[in-house]
Amino acid sequence: MSDGTDGPDVQDVDDPDDPRLDDFRDLNSVDRRPDLPSGKGLVIAEGVLVVQRMLASRFTAHALLGTDRRLAELAGDLAGRAVPFYRTSAEVMAQVVGFHLNRGVLAAARRVPEPTVAGLVEGARTVAVLEGVNDHENLGSIFRNAAGLGVDAVVFGSGCADPLYRRAVRVSMGHALLVPYARATDWPAELKMLKQKGFRVLAMTPDSTACALPEAMAAARDERIAVVVGAEGPGLTPATLRLSDARVRIPMSRGTDSLNVATAAALAFYERARLGP
Amino acid sequence: MSDGTDGPDVQDVDDPDDPRLDDFRDLNSVDRRPDLPSGKGLVIAEGVLVVQRMLASRFTAHALLGTDRRLAELAGDLAGRAVPFYRTSAEVMAQVVGFHLNRGVLAAARRVPEPTVAGLVEGARTVAVLEGVNDHENLGSIFRNAAGLGVDAVVFGSGCADPLYRRAVRVSMGHALLVPYARATDWPAELKMLKQKGFRVLAMTPDSTACALPEAMAAARDERIAVVVGAEGPGLTPATLRLSDARVRIPMSRGTDSLNVATAAALAFYERARLGP
Repeated sequence: MSDGTDGPDVQDVDDPDDPRLDDFRDLNSVDRRPDLPSGKGLVIAEGVLVVQRMLASRFTAHALLGTDRRLAELAGDLAGRAVPFYRTSAEVMAQVVGFHLNRGVLAAARRVPEPTVAGLVEGARTVAVLEGVNDHENLGSIFRNAAGLGVDAVVFGSGCADPLYRRAVRVSMGHALLVPYARATDWPAELKMLKQKGFRVLAMTPDSTACALPEAMAAARDERIAVVVGAEGPGLTPATLRLSDARVRIPMSRGTDSLNVATAAALAFYERARLGP
Repeated sequence: MSDGTDGPDVQDVDDPDDPRLDDFRDLNSVDRRPDLPSGKGLVIAEGVLVVQRMLASRFTAHALLGTDRRLAELAGDLAGRAVPFYRTSAEVMAQVVGFHLNRGVLAAARRVPEPTVAGLVEGARTVAVLEGVNDHENLGSIFRNAAGLGVDAVVFGSGCADPLYRRAVRVSMGHALLVPYARATDWPAELKMLKQKGFRVLAMTPDSTACALPEAMAAARDERIAVVVGAEGPGLTPATLRLSDARVRIPMSRGTDSLNVATAAALAFYERARLGP
């Protein structure tokens, strides 16, 4: 594979200070991590499964760092790609990234231009819309649930965390790299545009006076829908609730307050998928 | 409140080494944390909401540690309880527990005897059964979902984490202290006992040949059910699958492999609750 055309360009590295590894350095650093949007702004995939999903995505990996064992596991996925694979030990990897990474392989890619919301929802039947979801694990879980439960695209309103942060990508099982998304530039006014395009905007809320999920989804069965979820605690803003076509609640037992936002989203996606296209 | 009968016995503490605080010491220590089952085996509630749920539960708090602000927030819940409340600063709390705890209040209780599985399921219509769920966050999420979505009780098969570990209790929003549970002593043979008691045992699996969730729940609509979920990755053991009445899958899109175990459980609980009692 030395000509770099049949497979990865495997380069052995022993020195943790080698500048070829700079895109993988200090992954947990608050101000230096390579996936900081205000810094290098890279996308980092971690572990064999997530790296595979990056390789299948619109993000082009420009370098990998990993152990020989992970290189072997990824051989099929890397066939035909001339990307450098920096092969090293788990110990050197730990020194580079700043902690022991038991997944054994990383890939780095540059960000790609994001579509407009209008462009994103073209052809979509079911979209998820997030407002104030500022927790990376919840964000990652929402992408995983969206991928598994038939959501076509994700729209970011205001106050959301970065879906391309390593932890969000990892929790999403790589689906943050695969499910298309866009960020609203005029929020919440862009909800009006969704309505003009024929989307029924359903705002998820724990409010007991809202419409129960099965009835709300049945009523929207033949329409395009946008399922809007907000942060746990504050929930959706009044402006967003006002712009919605319906407020929707999940029927709850025992006087419990709410479910986790990613779980609530999963139930809404499931109910939508349950009724069929 | 100085007589200790109208409300908490407030005791100001300035010294982080004060032995009265020992039940709250080194909460993150692998081998000394007070909620380690092989050690003190206490139950630690963290934050106002979870402490409130502990106070409403079968676990009797024998001590609280917190700031004056949290004491004020809990005044109503603590009325009539002569429990000591060790009042201190956030800084002293951090020195005691070993990290900065921004929830500002802790309560400690002793464990209570657990029922048998047979005793637990008496009168229950819907139970969750867990096998190999060894992640505390997943375990906590399952309790939160069980509480919100109408599950009467939780049965632990083999290989599960401790539901009373502080992190599980916190992620459950305190519902790990409220939803009744029991541990199987003869696993998976106790599934047979559940069947003898009239429970239909539904094993959740990503296997595409399994019965789809809506059909499986509709078929069991008038029966007692036990929803069995396993760890992500390995899934349920062959012995458990053999003892089940039906294998049940969540219909998935995009060829995705699986959902998070707590999310899959939530969808099963939701579908059960959706069909009504």
